[in-house]
Amino acid sequence: MRLKAKLFDVDAEEPRVIAHREDCKELGVKQMDRVRLDARTSLTIVVSISDTIVKKGEILIPRAIMAKIGVADKQMLEVVFSPKPESVKSIRKKMDSQKLTRDEINEIVFDILESKLSKIEVSAWLTALYINGMDTEEIANFTQSMVNTGEKIIFDRTPVFDFHSLGGVPGNKITPIVVSIVAAAGLMLPKTSSRAISSACGTSDFVEVFCDVELDAATLKRTAEAVGGVFAWGGSMNIAPVDDMVIDIEYPLGINPRAQMLASILSKKMAISATHLLVDIPMGTGTKVTSLEQAREYARDLMELGTRLGIRTECAITYGDQPVGNAIGPALEARECIRILEGHSHPASVVEKACDLAGMILEMGGIPDGPAKAREILASGQAFKKFREIVEAQNGKKDITSEDIVIGKYVADVRAVRSGYVHSINNKDLVAIARTAGAPSDKGAGILLYRKKGQRAEKGEILFQIYADNQAKADRAKDMAIKLDPMDIEGMLIKKVPNPSALKSI
Amino acid sequence: MRLKAKLFDVDAEEPRVIAHREDCKELGVKQMDRVRLDARTSLTIVVSISDTIVKKGEILIPRAIMAKIGVADKQMLEVVFSPKPESVKSIRKKMDSQKLTRDEINEIVFDILESKLSKIEVSAWLTALYINGMDTEEIANFTQSMVNTGEKIIFDRTPVFDFHSLGGVPGNKITPIVVSIVAAAGLMLPKTSSRAISSACGTSDFVEVFCDVELDAATLKRTAEAVGGVFAWGGSMNIAPVDDMVIDIEYPLGINPRAQMLASILSKKMAISATHLLVDIPMGTGTKVTSLEQAREYARDLMELGTRLGIRTECAITYGDQPVGNAIGPALEARECIRILEGHSHPASVVEKACDLAGMILEMGGIPDGPAKAREILASGQAFKKFREIVEAQNGKKDITSEDIVIGKYVADVRAVRSGYVHSINNKDLVAIARTAGAPSDKGAGILLYRKKGQRAEKGEILFQIYADNQAKADRAKDMAIKLDPMDIEGMLIKKVPNPSALKSI
Repeated sequence: MRLKAKLFDVDAEEPRVIAHREDCKELGVKQMDRVRLDARTSLTIVVSISDTIVKKGEILIPRAIMAKIGVADKQMLEVVFSPKPESVKSIRKKMDSQKLTRDEINEIVFDILESKLSKIEVSAWLTALYINGMDTEEIANFTQSMVNTGEKIIFDRTPVFDFHSLGGVPGNKITPIVVSIVAAAGLMLPKTSSRAISSACGTSDFVEVFCDVELDAATLKRTAEAVGGVFAWGGSMNIAPVDDMVIDIEYPLGINPRAQMLASILSKKMAISATHLLVDIPMGTGTKVTSLEQAREYARDLMELGTRLGIRTECAITYGDQPVGNAIGPALEARECIRILEGHSHPASVVEKACDLAGMILEMGGIPDGPAKAREILASGQAFKKFREIVEAQNGKKDITSEDIVIGKYVADVRAVRSGYVHSINNKDLVAIARTAGAPSDKGAGILLYRKKGQRAEKGEILFQIYADNQAKADRAKDMAIKLDPMDIEGMLIKKVPNPSALKSI
Repeated sequence: MRLKAKLFDVDAEEPRVIAHREDCKELGVKQMDRVRLDARTSLTIVVSISDTIVKKGEILIPRAIMAKIGVADKQMLEVVFSPKPESVKSIRKKMDSQKLTRDEINEIVFDILESKLSKIEVSAWLTALYINGMDTEEIANFTQSMVNTGEKIIFDRTPVFDFHSLGGVPGNKITPIVVSIVAAAGLMLPKTSSRAISSACGTSDFVEVFCDVELDAATLKRTAEAVGGVFAWGGSMNIAPVDDMVIDIEYPLGINPRAQMLASILSKKMAISATHLLVDIPMGTGTKVTSLEQAREYARDLMELGTRLGIRTECAITYGDQPVGNAIGPALEARECIRILEGHSHPASVVEKACDLAGMILEMGGIPDGPAKAREILASGQAFKKFREIVEAQNGKKDITSEDIVIGKYVADVRAVRSGYVHSINNKDLVAIARTAGAPSDKGAGILLYRKKGQRAEKGEILFQIYADNQAKADRAKDMAIKLDPMDIEGMLIKKVPNPSALKSI
């Protein structure tokens, strides 16, 4: 059918044309079916049907699609029905709990990338994946397909070490310390990190307080080869781009299917040609992994998949029942991180976690006594020297110190309402409070903990401080802190158990 | 946050506001999160984020939503973040294969109806339902919730008989015959039917060739009580409206979860207060039900659910391996249907199916020897008389005959390319050919079969004729018929089996 193209100037979330109900009837097209625009192209696109905003004989086409097919506003073009992509059948197969072939998986991944699958279909895919899962062979093929959707960085140096944290624990500012120690030891670790999605501060959110994180692939390669490490934001390169498209659907559903999660991690590592990988699995209430059994399962999955993909993978299950260190939020975490590199020994949890994990990487690189060696490199100032080299290479201040970091000017104290011991700290509540204070987009916003688990606080003493960039957010975060009461403070006597026989006599 | 409302004049498929990226950051709103517009209303709505089509400080709002909340273009209004509806958690629960409570199911159904759930979430819901299913108690609650989303018709007469076909077999034009026989016997059967979704012709598609089908609830009630029967289109009343919203998501996914299908059927029957229900389950290649075991399962499900909901339900498993009768397509089916009512005895398959099913309904109504009684009512002309009363009540021609029906003027013959017996007829291919010829929207379009299964055709004889409203469509349908070759014609000798010992000696 020949229809007149009309520009539709809306940047819809997903590419879509809008055609008139009667033309669609004629074309045999139903809502969410696809058409091919112009016989010369192979571009198929999902159709929305309307009888109000488009006239019969016309078809509304978004600007980007017009450019792609080389059609101008008001030009006539041929529109034909296009059958569903084969990948819809493969999604059905996964709904029916069947194993998918390499080609079927590859088709799904590329059809998501090219928006040939609508959000409705991608949602069904992720739900099927969440419920029915994938075996290791499928996940390996899935990972490879995701790598193939984007850029791949090949280094002139090998081996390539990499490091990843499953996340979920606030205040985990160890990445720049780990990278600096490992690079100072002469190994290469080109680290790409993420920004916060639902957390208070991702690694890239606090690193960009003191240097650029948006490196292109060429800069990442050059810097890593010259200096031994980088602190890049993974999103600034075209690495496994399909992953970000999927996150937009996972978020509203609140799911992260295991197969998708594993393929997402490993594809990013394969895209930077990692040969050795250490994965940090924080375990604790409010993180992704809440039991040792679950943590071991993740570790097994990652190592099995890593082996299949030719990446030597090790895992570290770490303590995640409370924040790592005392600072949560971009500037506060940046300052605490740099202080440790400057030689401060507190908070000890940050030093310990960073050195133990860096030590595991050193041992993977053939350096014996890894953790001790890591502590030596940190204590001697070599790690700080390497850190400053990386910061400078990423356009940060040449001789940066922790004093350079500007934290939020508006501070609200949250005090103990009774005396006792901190029995537990709710990670999720702290994240909610820090986000209300403005983190991660307000760089100065966040939380500074004065007490951690097991420590005693007297009534009226400060438990934590809220930092914000304006008074209103500080106040709002404090209100939330009082409502959520994220620290559980009790005496040593937790619960009185009355005598049951006494109860019976009532 | 206070934002300026701006009219967004697009009838989006789902209600959605568009806000600027920076305002969303400030609000803590991510893509597909929800906001509440104006503190006075409880209306929450999904947000799309843009930095091109909306200015900072403004929010684009569709016309319908503006009217709903009583806000005018350019008015300032308060916008606040709104957490995900509880129903998202219940969807997660079903993904995790847990049983849902009556309240949880009710919330999901009403949140779909009120567009509080986005299409992404509804897609995940249907996928979870497809994979993990529901038990009978859940389906009963689901059905009741669906009934509650719409209108309910209460008759002054009881009992209320109803009839439903699972569909999937082309040419199934028995409904007006069944209704006419049952009504002529003095029972009331207020039948609501559907239009074709993917088939060549739904009951309403061919009934509207000779009378109105879009009756409102009051007309349906009045007509059924007076005449004993109606042939209404279910979509013209506000009966279980949520069902149609769900079909829009099921279609692109190509799924129809069992729980959804059962709730969909029974909710429509409950909405018209049915007390007795007969369900036709056509079984055969290319229908929804392909084996006797599967058919029995459907029957068991329907009867169990019907009992729980207080509807006496019986099922008939019927032959669906080829079309019912010879005609496929609106006018052709209308003509064949009326001819049977006029007293023609061919095609026998239509007479037989209609009388057997009508007979089962008569027996449910306490009339003994149902099938014989049904044949008597049909043969005596009482059914035709009743049919004409119903047609007249629905604004059709007073003394309608089969001669009044106008069929397509453009005819293409499809002939046997070799002599032999019709071994099989592919229902799906016939549907595709009829749709290419223009059915169901071109009323005259369709197929007339000259041969059915088991019959002999000599080379060059007509197997079937294609009818269309213009030459181009007739030609296109014929090309498709030649390509698809929907009738399998073989000699009595189907396959020669060579002697294996002879093969070995080669």
